[in-house]
Amino acid sequence: MKHKLREYSLADIVSYLADDVLDEVRQGGEQLSGLETIKVTGLASLQNATAQQLTFLSNPKFADHLSTTQAAAVMIAEDGSDACSAPVLRVRNPYLAYAKVSALFDASVSIGSGAIEAGIHPSAVVHEAAFLAAGVSVGPNAVIAADANIGKNTVIGASCAIGAGTVIGADCVLNNNVTLYHDIVLADRVRLHSGCVIGSDGFGFAPKPDGGWQKIHQLGRVVVGSDVEIGANTTIDRGAIEDTVISKGVIIDNQVQIAHNVWIGENTAIAACVGIAGSTRIGKNCTIAGAVGIIGHLEIVDNVHVTAMSLVTNSIKEPGAYSGGTGLSPNKEWRRSVVRFGQLDSMAKRLRELEKQAGKNRNTE
Amino acid sequence: MKHKLREYSLADIVSYLADDVLDEVRQGGEQLSGLETIKVTGLASLQNATAQQLTFLSNPKFADHLSTTQAAAVMIAEDGSDACSAPVLRVRNPYLAYAKVSALFDASVSIGSGAIEAGIHPSAVVHEAAFLAAGVSVGPNAVIAADANIGKNTVIGASCAIGAGTVIGADCVLNNNVTLYHDIVLADRVRLHSGCVIGSDGFGFAPKPDGGWQKIHQLGRVVVGSDVEIGANTTIDRGAIEDTVISKGVIIDNQVQIAHNVWIGENTAIAACVGIAGSTRIGKNCTIAGAVGIIGHLEIVDNVHVTAMSLVTNSIKEPGAYSGGTGLSPNKEWRRSVVRFGQLDSMAKRLRELEKQAGKNRNTE
Amino acid sequence: MKHKLREYSLADIVSYLADDVLDEVRQGGEQLSGLETIKVTGLASLQNATAQQLTFLSNPKFADHLSTTQAAAVMIAEDGSDACSAPVLRVRNPYLAYAKVSALFDASVSIGSGAIEAGIHPSAVVHEAAFLAAGVSVGPNAVIAADANIGKNTVIGASCAIGAGTVIGADCVLNNNVTLYHDIVLADRVRLHSGCVIGSDGFGFAPKPDGGWQKIHQLGRVVVGSDVEIGANTTIDRGAIEDTVISKGVIIDNQVQIAHNVWIGENTAIAACVGIAGSTRIGKNCTIAGAVGIIGHLEIVDNVHVTAMSLVTNSIKEPGAYSGGTGLSPNKEWRRSVVRFGQLDSMAKRLRELEKQAGKNRNTE
Repeated sequence: MKHKLREYSLADIVSYLADDVLDEVRQGGEQLSGLETIKVTGLASLQNATAQQLTFLSNPKFADHLSTTQAAAVMIAEDGSDACSAPVLRVRNPYLAYAKVSALFDASVSIGSGAIEAGIHPSAVVHEAAFLAAGVSVGPNAVIAADANIGKNTVIGASCAIGAGTVIGADCVLNNNVTLYHDIVLADRVRLHSGCVIGSDGFGFAPKPDGGWQKIHQLGRVVVGSDVEIGANTTIDRGAIEDTVISKGVIIDNQVQIAHNVWIGENTAIAACVGIAGSTRIGKNCTIAGAVGIIGHLEIVDNVHVTAMSLVTNSIKEPGAYSGGTGLSPNKEWRRSVVRFGQLDSMAKRLRELEKQAGKNRNTE
Repeated sequence: MKHKLREYSLADIVSYLADDVLDEVRQGGEQLSGLETIKVTGLASLQNATAQQLTFLSNPKFADHLSTTQAAAVMIAEDGSDACSAPVLRVRNPYLAYAKVSALFDASVSIGSGAIEAGIHPSAVVHEAAFLAAGVSVGPNAVIAADANIGKNTVIGASCAIGAGTVIGADCVLNNNVTLYHDIVLADRVRLHSGCVIGSDGFGFAPKPDGGWQKIHQLGRVVVGSDVEIGANTTIDRGAIEDTVISKGVIIDNQVQIAHNVWIGENTAIAACVGIAGSTRIGKNCTIAGAVGIIGHLEIVDNVHVTAMSLVTNSIKEPGAYSGGTGLSPNKEWRRSVVRFGQLDSMAKRLRELEKQAGKNRNTE
Repeated sequence: MKHKLREYSLADIVSYLADDVLDEVRQGGEQLSGLETIKVTGLASLQNATAQQLTFLSNPKFADHLSTTQAAAVMIAEDGSDACSAPVLRVRNPYLAYAKVSALFDASVSIGSGAIEAGIHPSAVVHEAAFLAAGVSVGPNAVIAADANIGKNTVIGASCAIGAGTVIGADCVLNNNVTLYHDIVLADRVRLHSGCVIGSDGFGFAPKPDGGWQKIHQLGRVVVGSDVEIGANTTIDRGAIEDTVISKGVIIDNQVQIAHNVWIGENTAIAACVGIAGSTRIGKNCTIAGAVGIIGHLEIVDNVHVTAMSLVTNSIKEPGAYSGGTGLSPNKEWRRSVVRFGQLDSMAKRLRELEKQAGKNRNTE
């Protein structure tokens, strides 16, 4: 069994992308025929594509490669079929077309590749009080607790653990080793990567008189909208009393930590290693770059971009790009800057003093 | 089966909190009777509570809601029963009382909710040379190796892996998919969240003459005191020769990394995404905010607070609050500050030069 | 069954280290005989070693303990047998010798300690189209998908999930709960810690006209060279089209995130909590300290050292040490520095103005 073999004709590709295609396929300026005889077995860059690989031009800096590419075809926004050594497939948005076509070549669990067998694997432990809709697949050694409810065609990977009362929509993909606690809600087409944990307890404790901590049991849920993707080893805590909410279309990379009662607006993108503390609300269409920290109880409006490894310490009320940090220097120079950073307030005051004195001098000149 | 249905009378609540209750339940200034007929099915905020939900007033900024709350009862420190629209349950410390009561409504694995069945699930793989005390539950597909020793009433969630020779105390809760390596020691009432890994190898390597690395096998253990909670996907490495130690009452959030031979004192709280490098000792009652980094071989005294995303580069010898970082700015302004950060040493020297010259000017005036 | 009991004679140790030993074992300046009667059951520090524990002197600051150590023997580079209270085993490099000897006392899964039983556990789910070479062990509840190919003597821990078509070399150790996606390649002697995820999808999405995100399916692999170690809960994403590459001899600590199409050169060491964004290339023999962030599409040459929690925002073209961040201050002082950080550009301009004016003054003196 070869689980990876995928082959399409160029005609198949054109048909699959129909809504995005602007024109017939051309080569040397002429309409190309026989598309069903041109075989495509994968994707590659303009430089590296072989005669059975599809490619695209999105970034103009690679346009020089058009005249030499060996690809089966090039997806491109402008015609350019005169200049291009390969067949030209003119599309509305080559990067988006590439994204769509990439699904055809994905050998993963999601598209019936043999990576997971259809149906419920006999080693899976599915509670008798769980409900699985038609077409659900459950991988080996997965565990599904009582009252869980899995929507149609959803794939639960090997060794996943689905808690009691958790509701999963249709056409979701849980890769191997995903953990959902009890009473979590996922809408449709949610895609979760291995090692992610949804619904762990928020970090809530009340100080006790003896110096210890009294646990506050976390009674809220995590509610995840449709078309959300969540990366490997990301953690999203359940709410303390009310819910943690990830709105539809949000994309979250690996090793992100989202604390209890955070609310994230539609289509916001969160890169790897970001940490968001409790009860913070983030608007729609934000992009949070890698390793950003956001402290708790803040409000961030729509369309905010925070650059890598910045710490957000106050609410952000205006859209725009925000940053923190010092940049990078050779260690020797940096050591001097750090010493001076601690002297900044004194420097500012001494500067003010000199200005006053200079003003006096000017007045007495 | 409805695994979440929990209902208590207000009389049950009063009895459960007995040590914390200061007074009889009052409404409109009068003692309220019939507490056993008032049903409570959950917790909510003052604003959102319905007639079957209990609430509390801890932060005075929400006091305005007392006169309109619909709650079944309000836990509060002062009497206030004249002003409050709902029954008033006067307690020593409302936030602590809320924390205690929250346990009654927790539907999770820990309190016999049906999320996990009592006993050893037939799919669990328990080595014949492992010892399980009375009342231990082991979830589906969990694996317990030789010589492991599990204390009474401890719950091991689905798909957990417990290494050889690991000792777990009584009344611990391991949520699904927890990994304990071999020879780990947990005391009583330790609570571990999914995806956490305790006892992985410390990052120890000796440089080889050929430029490669010779692994130093990690022979110490991780020893975790009683009443510790450890968050989802947190990792704690075993010691190189001696042990890594987490003292009793420590609370650790998600995605924290604790390296080999770290020692953490009692009741210290560590928020998410913190990284602590090898052999560092942290005192008692410290609070380490999110995403803080602490380098190796440091000593931090008791009662230190480090604010979010600071890097601790030296030992801290005095209690108090410590911080690092630049704060956040609009990206355009920040770019200018970063350039100037690299010029700080030169700026300081030029400032000194001007001061000298100004002093000369003054002298010659 | 006691899975930890390990006992060697000092003669065994000398024989095991043969290539590293410079001299016969001496005590009080005299050659020591009867090495096979001296029993060693573990390793310890010079100060703490008992009569059955081996120790070493690598850092001269501990040399004072030589005259009082109770150890079974001390590995040391210089002779020193006159001054040392214990037998002296002179070796080329004591730290390296310690690293090598540590393997003898490791009770973990890797060295047949009883922590894992040899062979394929009956609860493991091994696809009939997977190939396992001679001597492979597979722990309880592990899942191995179709077309996976596992090299000889490799150990797959409990509850690991190995994706379809994944190829693993010989003598690898996968601790419990490791996840490898489909079509991953590991060379020989790779050691993976629990919770690590190799081959999850890179974070690739094309913006859609409606504001949502179109997933770019990730078609590349992760290719890991020989003698690589990867820490607990570390994540390495598969490439978008081409592969993510971890070269031989690389060592990676816990909770590191490596994005799609990153390329890491031989013997580079990456400490915990580092995040490396997509398509960045890191050279050989680099050391990346804890919690460093490296943005995407950069090139870092060989022999670069980046200090803890720095953000690398540009390519690094010269070997050397690089740093970022502000260091740590008492919170009160730090608050003032942060305010001034935002005023730095204005301060620099005012300084320049004063210098101009002072120059004028000097000219007019």
